[in-house]
Amino acid sequence: MGTPPRVGAGSAPLAVDDVLEVIASVRRDAPLVQCITNAVVTGFTANVLLAAGAAPAMVDIPEEAGPFAAVASAVLVNLGTPHAEQRDAARAAVAAARNAGVPWVLDPVAVGFLPVRTALANELGAQGPTVVRGNASEILALGGGGAGGRGVDSTEGPREALPAARRLIDAGAGAVAVSGPEDVLTDGSRIVVLTGGHPLLTRVTGAGCALGALTAACAAVTPDPLLAALAASAWMGAAGEVAAATATGPGSFAVGLVDAIASLDAAELTPRIRISG
Amino acid sequence: MGTPPRVGAGSAPLAVDDVLEVIASVRRDAPLVQCITNAVVTGFTANVLLAAGAAPAMVDIPEEAGPFAAVASAVLVNLGTPHAEQRDAARAAVAAARNAGVPWVLDPVAVGFLPVRTALANELGAQGPTVVRGNASEILALGGGGAGGRGVDSTEGPREALPAARRLIDAGAGAVAVSGPEDVLTDGSRIVVLTGGHPLLTRVTGAGCALGALTAACAAVTPDPLLAALAASAWMGAAGEVAAATATGPGSFAVGLVDAIASLDAAELTPRIRISG
Amino acid sequence: MGTPPRVGAGSAPLAVDDVLEVIASVRRDAPLVQCITNAVVTGFTANVLLAAGAAPAMVDIPEEAGPFAAVASAVLVNLGTPHAEQRDAARAAVAAARNAGVPWVLDPVAVGFLPVRTALANELGAQGPTVVRGNASEILALGGGGAGGRGVDSTEGPREALPAARRLIDAGAGAVAVSGPEDVLTDGSRIVVLTGGHPLLTRVTGAGCALGALTAACAAVTPDPLLAALAASAWMGAAGEVAAATATGPGSFAVGLVDAIASLDAAELTPRIRISG
Repeated sequence: MGTPPRVGAGSAPLAVDDVLEVIASVRRDAPLVQCITNAVVTGFTANVLLAAGAAPAMVDIPEEAGPFAAVASAVLVNLGTPHAEQRDAARAAVAAARNAGVPWVLDPVAVGFLPVRTALANELGAQGPTVVRGNASEILALGGGGAGGRGVDSTEGPREALPAARRLIDAGAGAVAVSGPEDVLTDGSRIVVLTGGHPLLTRVTGAGCALGALTAACAAVTPDPLLAALAASAWMGAAGEVAAATATGPGSFAVGLVDAIASLDAAELTPRIRISG
Repeated sequence: MGTPPRVGAGSAPLAVDDVLEVIASVRRDAPLVQCITNAVVTGFTANVLLAAGAAPAMVDIPEEAGPFAAVASAVLVNLGTPHAEQRDAARAAVAAARNAGVPWVLDPVAVGFLPVRTALANELGAQGPTVVRGNASEILALGGGGAGGRGVDSTEGPREALPAARRLIDAGAGAVAVSGPEDVLTDGSRIVVLTGGHPLLTRVTGAGCALGALTAACAAVTPDPLLAALAASAWMGAAGEVAAATATGPGSFAVGLVDAIASLDAAELTPRIRISG
Repeated sequence: MGTPPRVGAGSAPLAVDDVLEVIASVRRDAPLVQCITNAVVTGFTANVLLAAGAAPAMVDIPEEAGPFAAVASAVLVNLGTPHAEQRDAARAAVAAARNAGVPWVLDPVAVGFLPVRTALANELGAQGPTVVRGNASEILALGGGGAGGRGVDSTEGPREALPAARRLIDAGAGAVAVSGPEDVLTDGSRIVVLTGGHPLLTRVTGAGCALGALTAACAAVTPDPLLAALAASAWMGAAGEVAAATATGPGSFAVGLVDAIASLDAAELTPRIRISG
């Protein structure tokens, strides 16, 4: 079985150029991203991955999830609608990913109050996820220090979740990305704050869940979990800014978001990536 | 356990201003709407609820559905793809909603010919749903007097379903909304007819299912089941009219529908809400 | 039980007018298409069918799938996310369709490496599907001669799959449609090559899966399996060309694709259907 594949966390400060390189690599390498994700967002998640240049595969039944994870470029485990077969599939995929050194992302959707997903998130969170991505309430519930929000909404700010994020890293996570009005990301040694994005990202179902999938795609092309999380958040945020500029509501925003993920080049991305440390 | 929470059915005639007040309340209060719904429409339903200002949560596994329903603002039970776990989740959610006085909406998709959903719809229909929403064939099949349509299509007109609707109300439903070329709604003492909408609403999957979810959102902010059903139908219909004005087909119509649900203000809604009684 | 309903394969060369007649028939007859399909694409598939004028019904639980298949106009079995209940539903639907002489389409998504779907595809592929639709890797894996691609991508060209397609026809399939940069279709006695379409069709999740559903809709209105497969591929390809002309990325392309499926008339379709034999 071996130990969890701790990808080599970097120590250098992260800059816009690092993000651009990850985005270019996803577009060039077309990583195969296995998604074990919730029923609400499967289609949107797959479309975001395709727009990013990745190859999505929703292989989420117990007998197939493990074998596939071993050959995938990265795995997303999202706990939004954790039916029984999916729970077994998640366990099998995580075990196989760990064994094969495949990066995997845990998105502990709405954990805290709901018993089944919370137990599974705690179980999986202890197995060395490359990145844990959630809102502040979710990270607080998983890392200790909060009772969880209501559904997918967060009632806390991202910075409040930093101590919980640190505990998740101490327990084996490579990096933790806390989404919110600003995104706060850390790998324990570095803390990065990303501003930007757009409030319409919270009015489209699956924007956060698709960000988890995009994080997995990025983790497939860089050994630095914090950079993977940062690149995915920056990519989604920049696309959200561009989409919001022409959207007439959340419906057209979701369409434009997918378009922008596909189309934004380095020159368009650069001014929309605002990293502070 | 207590008796089903019969919310206080109003007796006053309903007017456009009542509808506008409900819509404003949903936007202000952001009710948390638990959706136990079919696999085809989960994403679209969540996007309609988000556009409306509500907070969707698709919590539909047996162990979590009950606890969540007890704290939700409203619950939707839609029987479009009633897999085994979802059936148990629906039962748990309805029991918890009844116990906690949380309004809940039953959408008996395609009942009549199909055995599993029909049995479950009959079981749940007897437990005092705040609103039952369906097309004429579905209401006839559930309330007696019809054998159901083919799939989600109706082969009967909404007015033909009024006797069946009355039987459902006698059996404990707060109100029944029958969708069709005109919508016919009743709580037993009042009958309301709503005209408008647009035929493209029948060319987008999930428009009817999302209407059920929107009805639940409205039921969270008014104690009058008939008003909740009316407000949701009027909101969806007005948004459909606006979306159809610029759509070039059902794809762009679905996008514009979500935009319009989010954007229409009272001045835009008012001329598009045509209530007769 | 009877033998599989081998619809009368035609022998005449197929021309654009044949395709146009099938498209017109779908729009006129509104065939009821039962879809047992994967969780990623249910909504998009239903919207494509609605745009085409068909009536989709996602009836995919074991107890209901058989009775429904017996009264449906056509059935799609897509193995993209074959959960246990869906596998039983697929078996029941195929048995009922065969018995009732209802055409059915098999889409063996990602077969080859993944054990559960591959076993089921082999089982169902031997029961006389009206049409088998897949990419080259999938047809090679199912018909012998390949190990399957990675996920839904194909690593082989459509023409390379012709021997495998012929084996599937020898085993009872009415026709086989191999999607790719060009589509290659055969019923054993005729081979048709269709060029056109647009690369953006590979950047939208579910375009291939929806093509399987559209093939089922077409199979409901013609007894010639090859013509059904050709008409569906030509319809999707032409709509893709039109949608690509105004799309600004894969998000807007998906919206325009649905619009174009609904709107394209014979004059617009004709120059975009390029059949060679």
